[in-house]
Amino acid sequence: METLYRNARIATLAPFAEGLGIIEHGAILLSGERIAWVGPMEDLPTGINPARSINLEDRWVTPGLIDCHTHLVFGGDRAQEFEMRLAGASYEEIARAGGGIVSSVRATRAASEDELVAAALRRLDALIAEGVTTIEVKSGYGLDIETERRLLAAARRLGRERDVTVLATFLALHALPPEARDDRAGFVRMMCDEALPAFAADGLVDAVDAFCEGIAFSPEETARLFTAARALGLPVKLHADQLSNLHGARLAAEFGALSADHLEHTDADGAAAMAAAGTVAVLLPGAFYFLRETVKPPVEAFRAHGTRMAIATDCNPGTSPVTSLLTIMNMAATLFRLTVDECIAGVTREAARALGKLGETGTIEPGKFGDLAIWDIERPAELVYRVGFNPLHKRIRRGR
Amino acid sequence: METLYRNARIATLAPFAEGLGIIEHGAILLSGERIAWVGPMEDLPTGINPARSINLEDRWVTPGLIDCHTHLVFGGDRAQEFEMRLAGASYEEIARAGGGIVSSVRATRAASEDELVAAALRRLDALIAEGVTTIEVKSGYGLDIETERRLLAAARRLGRERDVTVLATFLALHALPPEARDDRAGFVRMMCDEALPAFAADGLVDAVDAFCEGIAFSPEETARLFTAARALGLPVKLHADQLSNLHGARLAAEFGALSADHLEHTDADGAAAMAAAGTVAVLLPGAFYFLRETVKPPVEAFRAHGTRMAIATDCNPGTSPVTSLLTIMNMAATLFRLTVDECIAGVTREAARALGKLGETGTIEPGKFGDLAIWDIERPAELVYRVGFNPLHKRIRRGR
Ligand SMILES: [Zn+2]
Ligand SMILES: [Zn+2]
Repeated sequence: METLYRNARIATLAPFAEGLGIIEHGAILLSGERIAWVGPMEDLPTGINPARSINLEDRWVTPGLIDCHTHLVFGGDRAQEFEMRLAGASYEEIARAGGGIVSSVRATRAASEDELVAAALRRLDALIAEGVTTIEVKSGYGLDIETERRLLAAARRLGRERDVTVLATFLALHALPPEARDDRAGFVRMMCDEALPAFAADGLVDAVDAFCEGIAFSPEETARLFTAARALGLPVKLHADQLSNLHGARLAAEFGALSADHLEHTDADGAAAMAAAGTVAVLLPGAFYFLRETVKPPVEAFRAHGTRMAIATDCNPGTSPVTSLLTIMNMAATLFRLTVDECIAGVTREAARALGKLGETGTIEPGKFGDLAIWDIERPAELVYRVGFNPLHKRIRRGR
Repeated sequence: METLYRNARIATLAPFAEGLGIIEHGAILLSGERIAWVGPMEDLPTGINPARSINLEDRWVTPGLIDCHTHLVFGGDRAQEFEMRLAGASYEEIARAGGGIVSSVRATRAASEDELVAAALRRLDALIAEGVTTIEVKSGYGLDIETERRLLAAARRLGRERDVTVLATFLALHALPPEARDDRAGFVRMMCDEALPAFAADGLVDAVDAFCEGIAFSPEETARLFTAARALGLPVKLHADQLSNLHGARLAAEFGALSADHLEHTDADGAAAMAAAGTVAVLLPGAFYFLRETVKPPVEAFRAHGTRMAIATDCNPGTSPVTSLLTIMNMAATLFRLTVDECIAGVTREAARALGKLGETGTIEPGKFGDLAIWDIERPAELVYRVGFNPLHKRIRRGR
């Protein structure tokens, strides 16, 4: 079944085109799940005879949006803690009241897979309503084998319950659970040597991730996990250099990571290493905004070295309860001074690259999946400039 | 026609109640356009016999939201200028390319009333979708009599085309148009002595406003306008102390203004004067965020003096292209450290007060209009804590 979308303004995001790879008056031919042809209207091949031909009346078309870093599946929320903090409670008081990541872990462990999926679907639907066709979902609020497995299974189910591509990342080293306080090494060993191979064998893992930070796991512990992932042939990602510079960016690059994420404290050496390794810098302005950080990721160094930049919601209950990728694009521009083109590439082509899926999606090119977002706008900058406005006209995933 | 909403968790915002004036297990009886009764379920008067009885299943009910400061009606947008600035263009280059407020004035003057209304309706619909039942709309992008009249007429039409209460504010002194560059006094005279009485006579004006700032109009020019408004019996509001402290807050208080707005540079004296005069402080975190300001409004001084605080989108094309009051609530908390209760009161009771309409709306009390928002949330803090998530279950305006 072929469908022709004609009279479109197309931001193809083709990798070797300039800027957004714009075709001012173009058409896209979808054949089944795939893009069969894209180009200017006047180059449309004669002899095609699509079953459907849809006039887009000069609307803009971009690749379907990709949220390449989320913690979408968790139990409970942290609204009460947010309220307490605004009312002046100290971190100690919040911890005494059962707050912090421990509260999310407790609520997550207590939730069934059905409950986790139901809660995550509300968040997922908000993202889908903005044109998201691919999303990465991390585990990491279980911190034991049984719950981490349930989180990964819930992530897989999201992809079956909605028309969206879900990539599941096992966030093996996120935080040390209370019961492992006196046995760090044992916890790391359990996650690397038991949980990871078991989940991988069951097809639950598309990538492996860690939180490398003073308050979380060391570079050595991270390297141990990454070595285990490499042995299983699984790609890795890293929460790196968010609060301090532990040279996580360089570590990620040394392991050929798909991405290193956050990166507020990354230095020029880290940026260069990432560029050389093809590791994408995933910027997360939502967490920067919520935590009222002042040190920004080294965007100039990324540009200078040619490090690719993606952006994502980081949707999570503690530091980025955000389910609008459009708002995150605005934050990346307003707070990090990314250009409009960088913001749009950051949620399409570069986000696909950060997931290792650039061969399948993230640009509008023949052979890729027909993942498209069609917008009621006059220029692409409108996707970045506004806040609280959703100009999505239609979302197409895998040709439908 | 009477309707009973039962099994509700109600944040009444009643003025003398503590916090949000919460009724944990309550009911609201609407009679026609008005609230006839509100209270705990067990106190429900016997003998009532409503035509409809709706079980809210423990959902939360707040007053309908009120956006008390917007510039919703304008021509064009400023997405291109936003894009240029991110790409490194200087203010001079943007001005040479026709950018800045002048570009909005040009596009507004060129737009018909129908075009202005159509563009504003898209923005209004986004706000209504979040439970907004009352909105203030300012003129101010015309800067000549004909266009300012068209803007006020467009604001009135918005209230007829949608089920929402629109209050029209004549922003008489917003900027000096290019053609008046050599005759400031003549422009001020025209706005105060010609435009204002004419618009007032035609019933187009609910309040009068000015932008008192070094780059805009002086305290003396503002006082001239306010004196003219007082002679006509019209309430005043003021864009005050946004970029510098011209003591606009005190000036507004001296004229008994409904509100003074922005207030980043207001001092304790201004806060005290506002409290004494009952002038509401309308905080606009969207503009603060977009302009990447660092000086915050004196929230502690407002609290110390008992100055009432409202919050609003300031929706405008140049410095706050925001059409989400929920996101603004989050920004008020995150950036200005307002508490959850202050944020919710700021878009309900205090916003009504800032519009001089607290007798009609803004709280859930008998005798007021039945303006309600019903939410799929577990606690009111969720309205403030999240970004990019709209948990509105149902909006009721004037009982329907
Ligand atoms: Zn994360
Ligand atoms: Zn304003």
